[in-house]
Amino acid sequence: MPTYVFGKESFLKFLEGHLSDDTVIVVSSDIASFDKRRVKSYTGEGDYYFVEFGIPDIFELNEDEVDELMKYAGIFVEKDELNEEGRKQLRP
Amino acid sequence: MPTYVFGKESFLKFLEGHLSDDTVIVVSSDIASFDKRRVKSYTGEGDYYFVEFGIPDIFELNEDEVDELMKYAGIFVEKDELNEEGRKQLRP
Repeated sequence: MPTYVFGKESFLKFLEGHLSDDTVIVVSSDIASFDKRRVKSYTGEGDYYFVEFGIPDIFELNEDEVDELMKYAGIFVEKDELNEEGRKQLRP
Repeated sequence: MPTYVFGKESFLKFLEGHLSDDTVIVVSSDIASFDKRRVKSYTGEGDYYFVEFGIPDIFELNEDEVDELMKYAGIFVEKDELNEEGRKQLRP
């Protein structure tokens, strides 16, 4: 599953790549549900967190078009709160 | 519900406020579910999108601690794809 672990510098660089002058970012911290489940993927079985966000419909777009927009979830965490696998993935 | 609409400059400023040198950001684009529902909140009835992200458990934290971490969903959209309400909320 596509997950990245960024330090401050690499995160800002990652974002710059997605931002043009005409891009705006709708940011929500409204969490509608949160749980942890054990799931199987092509990389094997593992524990995943599932976080659902609510975002008001402030778009001049239909549902399919909103579905296609680029969307990310970002979780802010202290570096020493990552486990070994997370620290291995870190891009400083 | 807590939603912000940022232009490039205000978004980068918003993020800077959340980033210390010890902070890392776990970013996921793995969408587990997506739907639109009409819901009632204290501000009235309205259409909301609900987007669920999956994040692998790469934390040295228990479930309650991960629940408490700061989390955001960000949707990248062109400015002219916002409706009037969205444009009113835009911080350039």
